[in-house]
Amino acid sequence: MTTPLSPTPRSTVRRNAIRARSDRAELYDLLDAGLVGHLGLAMPTGPLVLPTAYGRDGDTLYLHGSTGAATLRAAGGGLPVCFTVTHVDGIVYSRSAFHHSMNHRSAVVQGTARPVTDPDERWHALAVLTEHLAPGSWTATRQPDRRELAATAVLALDLTEASVKTRTGPPGEDERDLRTPAADWAGVLPLHTRWGTPVPCPLLPADLPVPERVSSRG
Amino acid sequence: MTTPLSPTPRSTVRRNAIRARSDRAELYDLLDAGLVGHLGLAMPTGPLVLPTAYGRDGDTLYLHGSTGAATLRAAGGGLPVCFTVTHVDGIVYSRSAFHHSMNHRSAVVQGTARPVTDPDERWHALAVLTEHLAPGSWTATRQPDRRELAATAVLALDLTEASVKTRTGPPGEDERDLRTPAADWAGVLPLHTRWGTPVPCPLLPADLPVPERVSSRG
Repeated sequence: MTTPLSPTPRSTVRRNAIRARSDRAELYDLLDAGLVGHLGLAMPTGPLVLPTAYGRDGDTLYLHGSTGAATLRAAGGGLPVCFTVTHVDGIVYSRSAFHHSMNHRSAVVQGTARPVTDPDERWHALAVLTEHLAPGSWTATRQPDRRELAATAVLALDLTEASVKTRTGPPGEDERDLRTPAADWAGVLPLHTRWGTPVPCPLLPADLPVPERVSSRG
Repeated sequence: MTTPLSPTPRSTVRRNAIRARSDRAELYDLLDAGLVGHLGLAMPTGPLVLPTAYGRDGDTLYLHGSTGAATLRAAGGGLPVCFTVTHVDGIVYSRSAFHHSMNHRSAVVQGTARPVTDPDERWHALAVLTEHLAPGSWTATRQPDRRELAATAVLALDLTEASVKTRTGPPGEDERDLRTPAADWAGVLPLHTRWGTPVPCPLLPADLPVPERVSSRG
């Protein structure tokens, strides 16, 4: 039950095709593991790329922001957008400067952002967005009131046109550099992201325990 | 000796102006601490945002990629671009779903990418790019030959039009949520990036030590 990625020419990865993956499950995993994506818009003043929170429900990405943000107003009008999520997994040290690289996974989604106006879908989208950012928070905190809802622009972006690109493993080397080593080392320096120790809001009662939804976050 | 950021209307941060910083040193720090940026282009097929390595020399950002990449060819023609670098520092848990947020630092650079064609500047740019990705690697490994140089497209992007936006600290809360707590917790869950244990290339001699330029990377 998988849909092929890259059904259109513009979303087909041309460079380093060996790094392109056609697995929708990999796209989902990559998006679900990310926190921030980069939303690209062709504004009248030129291209604009802004860090943007998101959440996924099936093949729909939800994005949100203030209704006062010019970029979200522009996207809501049906402008084409690009939304990219990237994980950096490590630095690839090669025997040559040329073959240095980064191990990474990235998803590039192209499409037309659709403003979400139906009240039920907006409510659902805000739940998806909140749960992506902070699992458990939608039910554990006060949910939006009418004023807050009115101040929030919600966009939906379909995952139909998406490409995934990954680079993993040791450096790819020239034969000549293996025969006559010109470097003091080669390999991969991994990069990890880790949650730190939760910092309570200073206005909380001192004895309030950190809930498991925060302390045990994976 | 600082230049104000955001000298033009399009690069002035409109939303949450309190989060905008006008400190060029902060821009440099933010860029120097990043590994990958997101390059936005207005392609004929629509906006495109691609993860891209970079390096900084003063007020010039250097970007590079394969001469076969359509995006870099397009940018090299003098197209306007946007290049954004984002650090996610933590998840902000609020007493309301609405005030959940992300602590982050981001730099948005707008400008026209200039293809770097002068051989001396190209060589310098590749050194800057390599040293940003892997400090010490430019001199510790084999440097590019003529064929590798010919296969590499180098772009320069001026840092004149740049804006920095940051969010730090505890959640901003509504008074009403402090009076009648509706959440089990509020605060910040920090997110850290850490280098892992270096993984040597399997083709290296088994007893080759990891050099300090890798093992002690900050």
